[in-house]
Amino acid sequence: MIKAGIIGSTGYAGAEIVRLLLQHPEAEIVWYGSRSYTDQNYADVYRNMFRLVDEKCMNDNMEALAEQADVIFTATPQGLCASLVSEAILSKAKIIDLSADFRLKRVDVYEKWYKLEHKAVQYLEEAVYGLCEINRDAIAAARIVANPGCYTTTSILTLYPLVKEKLIDPDSIIVDAKSGTSGAGRSAKLPNLFCEVNESIKPYGVATHRHTPEIEEQLSYAAGMDYRNGESVLINFTPHLVPMNRGILATCYANLKDGVSEEEIRNAYEKYYSDEYFIRLLEKGNFPETRWVEGSNFVDIGFTVDERTGRVITVGALDNLVKGAAGQAVQNMNLMFGLPENTGLKLVPLFP
Amino acid sequence: MIKAGIIGSTGYAGAEIVRLLLQHPEAEIVWYGSRSYTDQNYADVYRNMFRLVDEKCMNDNMEALAEQADVIFTATPQGLCASLVSEAILSKAKIIDLSADFRLKRVDVYEKWYKLEHKAVQYLEEAVYGLCEINRDAIAAARIVANPGCYTTTSILTLYPLVKEKLIDPDSIIVDAKSGTSGAGRSAKLPNLFCEVNESIKPYGVATHRHTPEIEEQLSYAAGMDYRNGESVLINFTPHLVPMNRGILATCYANLKDGVSEEEIRNAYEKYYSDEYFIRLLEKGNFPETRWVEGSNFVDIGFTVDERTGRVITVGALDNLVKGAAGQAVQNMNLMFGLPENTGLKLVPLFP
Amino acid sequence: MIKAGIIGSTGYAGAEIVRLLLQHPEAEIVWYGSRSYTDQNYADVYRNMFRLVDEKCMNDNMEALAEQADVIFTATPQGLCASLVSEAILSKAKIIDLSADFRLKRVDVYEKWYKLEHKAVQYLEEAVYGLCEINRDAIAAARIVANPGCYTTTSILTLYPLVKEKLIDPDSIIVDAKSGTSGAGRSAKLPNLFCEVNESIKPYGVATHRHTPEIEEQLSYAAGMDYRNGESVLINFTPHLVPMNRGILATCYANLKDGVSEEEIRNAYEKYYSDEYFIRLLEKGNFPETRWVEGSNFVDIGFTVDERTGRVITVGALDNLVKGAAGQAVQNMNLMFGLPENTGLKLVPLFP
Amino acid sequence: MIKAGIIGSTGYAGAEIVRLLLQHPEAEIVWYGSRSYTDQNYADVYRNMFRLVDEKCMNDNMEALAEQADVIFTATPQGLCASLVSEAILSKAKIIDLSADFRLKRVDVYEKWYKLEHKAVQYLEEAVYGLCEINRDAIAAARIVANPGCYTTTSILTLYPLVKEKLIDPDSIIVDAKSGTSGAGRSAKLPNLFCEVNESIKPYGVATHRHTPEIEEQLSYAAGMDYRNGESVLINFTPHLVPMNRGILATCYANLKDGVSEEEIRNAYEKYYSDEYFIRLLEKGNFPETRWVEGSNFVDIGFTVDERTGRVITVGALDNLVKGAAGQAVQNMNLMFGLPENTGLKLVPLFP
Repeated sequence: MIKAGIIGSTGYAGAEIVRLLLQHPEAEIVWYGSRSYTDQNYADVYRNMFRLVDEKCMNDNMEALAEQADVIFTATPQGLCASLVSEAILSKAKIIDLSADFRLKRVDVYEKWYKLEHKAVQYLEEAVYGLCEINRDAIAAARIVANPGCYTTTSILTLYPLVKEKLIDPDSIIVDAKSGTSGAGRSAKLPNLFCEVNESIKPYGVATHRHTPEIEEQLSYAAGMDYRNGESVLINFTPHLVPMNRGILATCYANLKDGVSEEEIRNAYEKYYSDEYFIRLLEKGNFPETRWVEGSNFVDIGFTVDERTGRVITVGALDNLVKGAAGQAVQNMNLMFGLPENTGLKLVPLFP
Repeated sequence: MIKAGIIGSTGYAGAEIVRLLLQHPEAEIVWYGSRSYTDQNYADVYRNMFRLVDEKCMNDNMEALAEQADVIFTATPQGLCASLVSEAILSKAKIIDLSADFRLKRVDVYEKWYKLEHKAVQYLEEAVYGLCEINRDAIAAARIVANPGCYTTTSILTLYPLVKEKLIDPDSIIVDAKSGTSGAGRSAKLPNLFCEVNESIKPYGVATHRHTPEIEEQLSYAAGMDYRNGESVLINFTPHLVPMNRGILATCYANLKDGVSEEEIRNAYEKYYSDEYFIRLLEKGNFPETRWVEGSNFVDIGFTVDERTGRVITVGALDNLVKGAAGQAVQNMNLMFGLPENTGLKLVPLFP
Repeated sequence: MIKAGIIGSTGYAGAEIVRLLLQHPEAEIVWYGSRSYTDQNYADVYRNMFRLVDEKCMNDNMEALAEQADVIFTATPQGLCASLVSEAILSKAKIIDLSADFRLKRVDVYEKWYKLEHKAVQYLEEAVYGLCEINRDAIAAARIVANPGCYTTTSILTLYPLVKEKLIDPDSIIVDAKSGTSGAGRSAKLPNLFCEVNESIKPYGVATHRHTPEIEEQLSYAAGMDYRNGESVLINFTPHLVPMNRGILATCYANLKDGVSEEEIRNAYEKYYSDEYFIRLLEKGNFPETRWVEGSNFVDIGFTVDERTGRVITVGALDNLVKGAAGQAVQNMNLMFGLPENTGLKLVPLFP
Repeated sequence: MIKAGIIGSTGYAGAEIVRLLLQHPEAEIVWYGSRSYTDQNYADVYRNMFRLVDEKCMNDNMEALAEQADVIFTATPQGLCASLVSEAILSKAKIIDLSADFRLKRVDVYEKWYKLEHKAVQYLEEAVYGLCEINRDAIAAARIVANPGCYTTTSILTLYPLVKEKLIDPDSIIVDAKSGTSGAGRSAKLPNLFCEVNESIKPYGVATHRHTPEIEEQLSYAAGMDYRNGESVLINFTPHLVPMNRGILATCYANLKDGVSEEEIRNAYEKYYSDEYFIRLLEKGNFPETRWVEGSNFVDIGFTVDERTGRVITVGALDNLVKGAAGQAVQNMNLMFGLPENTGLKLVPLFP
């Protein structure tokens, strides 16, 4: 049994880790960390857990936690994990960080987009970007995994084979993304009130959203660029808030390289994803809808080639709390502990 | 492995049986019946099942199905199961009927409320009302189980101990119920369009809804009445349509018998439910909310005594597609095949 | 032109007063009060008002406001209006208070249910309960009008003729009410977040909601009781939160007095409401749905008699922000200033 | 008083024309046409109109209607208006057609995208594209106005000044649009059921949606191209379905011509729109959200320049049933009858 601790277990992503681990055959939760609810019953914070979780919320003491746990999930705001991680902790427990602290390899990029000083630069090189389908081997050997963001998982997985196989012009990429509201977290902010979100759609972070450099970095690697020395794909990424609880849909546009056919696009996807349990490449004419992945760890991808404009329109969808956060974190845990990657994650999407 | 066939597998309740059985360790689906989609790929009808279900939809041939299956779920409109059931079928397979055909013991009541002639009166006596927490032993021995309705499961389980223990006046019972829209089924009707349901709440079937006699019959048994000879509890039951996918909440009112205290009410609930896995009696001051049971087989119950008016207000909530339909059907299957009752049903509620 | 000031113009009810007065031919807004947003552009708080409102938010200085305004709307938390009102103010401007401060005639009842000391007991007798259809004449002559609550408007108007005409047993009344989320106000509280409200229905304030005594008081008057000396109708009132922006539906149950027929019920409604512009008594077989009144000042009422149980089930619906708050406030203003009651309020419900 | 008839008055767009004309000071409705509901009470189809509309639904007899009306709105499927229009009708009444029949000047384009033979080619040249802000003078003189589509109104108005002023490369335009569900109409189709739409977002008509050539044609005119002889802007247009009733948001991307600054973009918008009542150019840093225009005839536009990628991202939002259909139709009527353009249309957006 893997002993797991969760820092930030009362946010939506943390609570989803709880849901998944409760149904995981090889893991148990030993620490329900929550700075806001320390000493309160976890099931009083999330009443769906009544009778299923008897524990009280614990504090943020990661050193104490490392004594008890094999793996620590940090589902906390940016900066927290970097400020707490230490060799003492890493000598005892692996860390899967759901914040952005270890996702970007370039400190200058992190500090520019996040307006934070990075407190653990020494672990940046060691940390592995936890996109299982792409970095599987490195993840298996890692002590620190930087769990990707929800928008970024969708965007990168949707575009990766096309960039890798040089079928599209990477500088023509536009990602127009739409997210359910759980991505905004569980803090009590006016813009997230029911009446503010319901019956509306809005863009936000236009040209400035922090997931932009994360997508660019990973696609730059795929494109074979020397990212650390300043080469980079540059994209437009526009997130939108949708009145639904869960789900991300990324509609991606790119100019095809001359003569690239729909078949070549399909071949590229199949080359990289045909053996992937969690990536479902849809048949011609079908496009993802977030309802078909809700509650599951699947990423659905569908595309078409528009010969009139010479572009590919490729669309990816996933559940932002599962494959976009907690599910991917558990998938990373499985890899890090040598379990089959889909252990505890063969979740059938819930519909309606 | 229990071999299961589903007639009506492309309705919402049928599809939920599919979801549950795919995750059930002791059952497999051998027949995806669907009159509307015969010969089409099941996963083209429910794209959440892409890669998870490869089968095509089959017809309604229950006799052929009985050759292959140990258990048949009929998730079909009223009248179909009664018109098809036969000794030949029952000699080979057990039937769990999700329609109302075998729920009401009195043919006159059935024919009055459903405006249908009953085609299988000979099985009425044999059929067992499949409310597991109340009829567990009879279900285990049954060939035909009448799976209760969604509103009725909520209402009966919420009121049963109070009626059984004679703590309330049964003729004072009022059930004001609210349901998500999946209860209306997947047929293309104007009143179920998104724009008709969204941003509104409405009552329907006021004083005429067909679940009324089903609740009355079961509560009459609990009250010790001679129901088959005309004695009956009479209640008011008012369902409402709520703009959400899943969930039923039943707010029940009843006059307390003289001197009955809150503690006696709680004791009654504990007497009947303290060992029930799927019934969660909430602590004082807490009331059910449908979000806390979504996707699970739980029934949450909370209550208060209003000393000003001498009434108890007791509230039950469940997921209409799980404990209100498919989950209860699988629970019945487990009982009928000697499995632990919660096999495949330890679903953690999905939130948000 | 009536000059109107609004204290609390940035809450949902206050903003709805703004929307209505902007379209009112005989009124203009001279003061957009908002403690939280003082000195900010009103249209930066409510961007629907961009280009329509150029003013900045003002503070709570009701004395300064009284110098400029003919009428002051206080759309503020309980206690504020009572703490500010004075003879100096009332000598210059009329007050329409949307809080509960002047709704209850009995100070002990107010202080018990609201847990507040009443700061302006001297005006309690003078203040008129602003339910236009019932207190029209007194409102026309009033200096202070206590604008009724949203739940109470629905409940009282739905039940009033039946109590007044003694067709039902007032102590058998049960009001099961359902409200959209705008009723919870615009403050940033966790329970009102989109993901907490969406896809769920919940009861709250069970047997303890503050609108209970307000309904009881008004129904007691209708019943001819000596309310101020302790006589009172006692009811059960249970509000529920529904995942929609606007709308209240009250499903009311009561035991019919012996022999009362459906026709007598209808006659009673027609006696009191047939000339009312804003009350629409539905035809037999039709029940209210909140979507049919959204954005308008209408109250829809429909009912049925259940001969099996001897009860009437009568249902009322309105838009909580219009007839349940701002629309009724403007209707009161019209009465107080001698305008036709529906001036500026002939709003066609918006659907879908 | 303008006498108006509506063919197709029981669709969502037709019903919105009813709502707007009921509140219009210079128009009255003389014909509530509805093939599906002929002879039924209009208010039984739309119960929000109870007491407001007493008329019964009429048939599609446009010749009889022309005898009674000054203007005919056809809110019907493609092909109907073209099959009925005649000189006899046009000699008596003006026509505002909300279908696509007269929107596209090239018959070959119409027949290719709509798979319909055009039945009234002789009126194509005469018909005026009814985008008031662009074709104001021609509309005022027209007998037939082709009321633009909802997606197209949003897209064209958002992009027009930038194309007209040659600030962007028209062949780089990508329009990623999101629509509420009322745009799908009121017909009883499975994909429009509440449970199918709710809690999901999906793209549809990817690279094939019929509004594409309409946007291309109008932008080609703006670009000064010889569209009728085969020159054309080519764009990518991807609509998405959002779980909300009303609203369209179009997120548009285009490559800036060399050296174009944010200021030049703003100047272009101001040049064309600063005097437009219904177009609200948002201040720097603000982007449209559909909630801020709901129920009104406003188009909100906001933009930013991304210097990293050399693109402008410009976003437009409107209410698809108002400015995207019925409101624009009434605006056209006002122009055609010499009324101030915003007569009856000074609707304050409804929020929340």
